[in-house]
Amino acid sequence: MTTTPLRIGIAGLGTVGGGTLKILRESADMLESRTGRALKVVAISARDRKKDRGVDVSGIRWLDDPLAMAKDPEIDVVVELIGGADGTARTLVEQSLTAGKSVVTANKALIAHHGIALAALAEKSGSLLAFEAAVAGGIPIIKALRDGLAANHFRRVAGIMNGTCNYILTTMWESKRQFDDVLKEAQALGYAEAEPSFDIDGIDTAHKLAILTSLAYGCAPAIDNVFIEGIRRVRLRDMECAAELGYTIKLLGIATQTEHGIEQRVHPCMVAMDSPLGTVHGVYNAIVAEGDSVGTIFFEGRGAGAGPTASSVVADIMDIARGAVYKPFTLPVSSLKSIPFCGVESLHCSYYLRLSVIDKPGVLAEVTGIFKNENISLRSFLQHSHKPGETVQLVLTTHETEEFSMRKAVDTISKLGTVKEPPYMIRIENI
Amino acid sequence: MTTTPLRIGIAGLGTVGGGTLKILRESADMLESRTGRALKVVAISARDRKKDRGVDVSGIRWLDDPLAMAKDPEIDVVVELIGGADGTARTLVEQSLTAGKSVVTANKALIAHHGIALAALAEKSGSLLAFEAAVAGGIPIIKALRDGLAANHFRRVAGIMNGTCNYILTTMWESKRQFDDVLKEAQALGYAEAEPSFDIDGIDTAHKLAILTSLAYGCAPAIDNVFIEGIRRVRLRDMECAAELGYTIKLLGIATQTEHGIEQRVHPCMVAMDSPLGTVHGVYNAIVAEGDSVGTIFFEGRGAGAGPTASSVVADIMDIARGAVYKPFTLPVSSLKSIPFCGVESLHCSYYLRLSVIDKPGVLAEVTGIFKNENISLRSFLQHSHKPGETVQLVLTTHETEEFSMRKAVDTISKLGTVKEPPYMIRIENI
Repeated sequence: MTTTPLRIGIAGLGTVGGGTLKILRESADMLESRTGRALKVVAISARDRKKDRGVDVSGIRWLDDPLAMAKDPEIDVVVELIGGADGTARTLVEQSLTAGKSVVTANKALIAHHGIALAALAEKSGSLLAFEAAVAGGIPIIKALRDGLAANHFRRVAGIMNGTCNYILTTMWESKRQFDDVLKEAQALGYAEAEPSFDIDGIDTAHKLAILTSLAYGCAPAIDNVFIEGIRRVRLRDMECAAELGYTIKLLGIATQTEHGIEQRVHPCMVAMDSPLGTVHGVYNAIVAEGDSVGTIFFEGRGAGAGPTASSVVADIMDIARGAVYKPFTLPVSSLKSIPFCGVESLHCSYYLRLSVIDKPGVLAEVTGIFKNENISLRSFLQHSHKPGETVQLVLTTHETEEFSMRKAVDTISKLGTVKEPPYMIRIENI
Repeated sequence: MTTTPLRIGIAGLGTVGGGTLKILRESADMLESRTGRALKVVAISARDRKKDRGVDVSGIRWLDDPLAMAKDPEIDVVVELIGGADGTARTLVEQSLTAGKSVVTANKALIAHHGIALAALAEKSGSLLAFEAAVAGGIPIIKALRDGLAANHFRRVAGIMNGTCNYILTTMWESKRQFDDVLKEAQALGYAEAEPSFDIDGIDTAHKLAILTSLAYGCAPAIDNVFIEGIRRVRLRDMECAAELGYTIKLLGIATQTEHGIEQRVHPCMVAMDSPLGTVHGVYNAIVAEGDSVGTIFFEGRGAGAGPTASSVVADIMDIARGAVYKPFTLPVSSLKSIPFCGVESLHCSYYLRLSVIDKPGVLAEVTGIFKNENISLRSFLQHSHKPGETVQLVLTTHETEEFSMRKAVDTISKLGTVKEPPYMIRIENI
């Protein structure tokens, strides 16, 4: 057993960095007994040296320049918690791996965009690149796909991977308020960023999905092949209609093995209220994986925050301390397959559609005629009371049909003179 | 990277053995690409050579005596799927580890009773002992506690770990039938053994709980310290009363860190219908872990069957192929702590109690007086219509109280002349 301490440098002391430092300090004895090796934070770096982080940092070297960690002979593992797909974070990770240091990161953007290049550097220098904390916070889903479920071919991997979106959607429903109002509150409470696009437009979920796809299917993360649609257009009215039909609205990331290739998509979904994903509320994250041997398996836990994310960061550090051997993306970089990806055009599911139309004779016949032309059969139709001649909201759901046909129908409908705003479509996911 | 195949011997070709063989044969290419090494089954052994297992066994050596695997220089890994805490299974694992071969097993009884002695053998010879499949079938909970959640101190680890019991309880409720009736059907369908005691009396769950406790708290499995009560006395009436109160009845295994030590218990529980564990039905298993950093994390999946259990067996074989390094119980055997265990006397929860009493004046006053004497306050009281002088079923629930007081009260009540059968108590678990 190695008895020299594992020497750790932490770059970035925000929520996750502070949480990581806290666990490494406060649970030092337990971590040492579980790994057989002391885990010692020897250097830290952050933007503001003076900020009180509620953790004792005495005896830890302060580095003004995080990049100094990559060259520091006294550091074995660099923990990158700066964030961002490029800039300092990327340079630090590249230089650290090149120098033969192992790297632990929670940076999903970095891994989704540059993971393969970084894994190649790690392979070359014999170091490890670990990113359990990059997806679904405290849920050990990276390790589950790489190790615990590694004997499976996956039909589908899907989940709720953005706590901000799930918080907003949950709060809209529970407090019967509209999106803009709840977003503002979430920003005030610190649950959403001042510039919220990354979360609410689905980009963060897409990064995470691309990483999961890569592990499940043995290919490089392909963020450009993810169909992405965020939650800005979801209205309380949609949630009310969903509830009438037994559904709830969640932003899901879904990777599916189809006959045309791997399909990756991020968009609001209606899922059954009593389904596993339908019961995941607030800032919780959850993942469903469907393997050929294991069947359906479900993981739920906190997707963000100091404790949960740091739990995953420290678990990765413990792996390194124990001398774990694995490839960051399971397969060696040279063996990663070039899997064909497909778009969502061939998706086959049921759809929900909200329309704003002027109520005059013939409108209904016009709309239903368009569906008939595309061979789409309707399952339900809702129209709330109103005065003749006014704008009325129509809500309908279809039986299972092709996305291609549905889009054609919606496109035709949106061009009708009686349709007052762009139709809003939500996919109904049987999961 | 090692390029010689990993040579595997499988002892026991029942459901799980057959499933393991199937994955190793049918997914051979994928497994090799994921581990960097061919996984080759070179020898098999089972009771009946002639039985058709639906898997091609051509080219695999047949051994009449499974113990021959331990001495076979052509075998690297022995997969023990015979079962039983002692006998051939134990001898095979002991001899294999002693001979320096790694062992993969799904045998919870063996690990719960002799795991530490076996881990010591593995440590001595530098081999691995892996048992992911011993707990919760396809759910990778052993790896999660050992690796993914290893940075946490656990407040509680609990779950539904016996598919037979969960199937019986679910079916009783869904088909409105009594225990004996559903058990017989489960036996006819092959979901329950002809001798069902191991499952329905909670022993199997206790074995699994002892293993989880050991991993979560860094101690040896202590099966003798598990309080065990099975599901034989659960009646449909209890389920109906539970439902009226918003609960469902599940057999749980629960390990808790208390101020008096680690408390391990297996018994029927009432849990909220809409809680994660309350929504786990049929043969599914689920585990809840509460860590100081990660918070509450939930895993659900199939707990038994060829595919799910074999998924975990093969995952362990893949770990060995990749050259994983870990101690079977996380800590070296010499470092396992001698943790104080405590009984359930100091448990603090709400209780449900079903009483059969002769309805005559004063009975209610007598019963409620006994609770008053023990300082237990009642939360609800149900008495269904009946004719005076007949036996009537009373059902009551208490506010939170001490198990010790509750037992005293129940004991006193059971001695009343008006009480016609032993009172039945179910703990209400806030989980």
